Amino acid sequence: MLLCDIGNTSYHFCEEDKVYKRDVKLFEPSDIKEIVFYICVNPQVKILLHRLDNWIDLSPYVAMTNYYVTMGIDRIFACEAIESGIIVDAGSAITVDIVQNGVFEGGFIYPGVNAMSQTYKNISTALDYSFNFELDLDKMPKNSRDAISYGYLKTLYNEVIAHNMNIYLTGGDAKKFAFLFSQATIDETLIFKGMKKIMKKGNLC
Amino acid sequence: MLLCDIGNTSYHFCEEDKVYKRDVKLFEPSDIKEIVFYICVNPQVKILLHRLDNWIDLSPYVAMTNYYVTMGIDRIFACEAIESGIIVDAGSAITVDIVQNGVFEGGFIYPGVNAMSQTYKNISTALDYSFNFELDLDKMPKNSRDAISYGYLKTLYNEVIAHNMNIYLTGGDAKKFAFLFSQATIDETLIFKGMKKIMKKGNLC
Repeated sequence: MLLCDIGNTSYHFCEEDKVYKRDVKLFEPSDIKEIVFYICVNPQVKILLHRLDNWIDLSPYVAMTNYYVTMGIDRIFACEAIESGIIVDAGSAITVDIVQNGVFEGGFIYPGVNAMSQTYKNISTALDYSFNFELDLDKMPKNSRDAISYGYLKTLYNEVIAHNMNIYLTGGDAKKFAFLFSQATIDETLIFKGMKKIMKKGNLC
Repeated sequence: MLLCDIGNTSYHFCEEDKVYKRDVKLFEPSDIKEIVFYICVNPQVKILLHRLDNWIDLSPYVAMTNYYVTMGIDRIFACEAIESGIIVDAGSAITVDIVQNGVFEGGFIYPGVNAMSQTYKNISTALDYSFNFELDLDKMPKNSRDAISYGYLKTLYNEVIAHNMNIYLTGGDAKKFAFLFSQATIDETLIFKGMKKIMKKGNLC
């Protein structure tokens, strides 16, 4: 069984326990002949896949009543994977979503590492530093690198921690945030777990 | 007495109670013949002003031991203006600095409104919204505009409030944040107050 979560930059495949990525610009989906169950946030790829009979969109199988219309389908499937907790999905954006007793309770969107790094650099070349992910969050910074790292990380940390829930850390940059959210469960396959759950509910497997 | 705080985009003048701005790209500082006391974070303008005898740089008059080398001189002069409190200076960057009993205790840098708005838009056109500054911070968002507004504003709010100090709100975007920090003292002339204080200490007036 082949699963695929398609973002703005890559096809993220899951085949049994094997997980791998393909570049959106280079990969040709019609090269795959077997059945692929997918979700997709990329509008161009969506159009492409609708023409291929062996690519099956899982989005119609999820009960949308709990979610909102413009919410990314990847966030929805991550929420479907857990019963209760706060999900931090660190990709090009960082989405933070709360699920309580199987119900989505709302969420917010924060810039991803690359996007935020570029933002500081654009404001001033004097702020062109890589983030210090091992920053001491209990100390107000007294140097430029820590001043932007604190601005980016401590603010996010406060808000996530304030909800006092189990934290699930996923997405391409999950490992970078592992030190910050030391109490989190890191699960880079959370979306695939949500997809499998929806497939079972929909009798697709 | 003419004071001037020069940023990356504008000359910010203070003459008695009158405050006005001039565009960095258009304004010609040699047109002014009277004495101007200034601070400047703009490297190009700095070079220009060093050649003009009637433009007097106030930065050598401040005791730098409490601050760090790469800290913006505008942040330092805002800190000099107060005895104790947390300063939120909302410009192209938002700098947040803590002063306790006249001593700088550290600070952090967060992206300004325009920079952050551009960041979300760059991540995805689906996130191209203006921020909702009147967002209910006690409710997890369930729509895209509030999801980015919460990501930008609630995270900053949490961190500023956590210090439990008097909040001083200044900078070009101060008014936008007035609803968020409803308990803050809004003072758009904070840096000029710091400049006047330093001038008194240095017997320049």
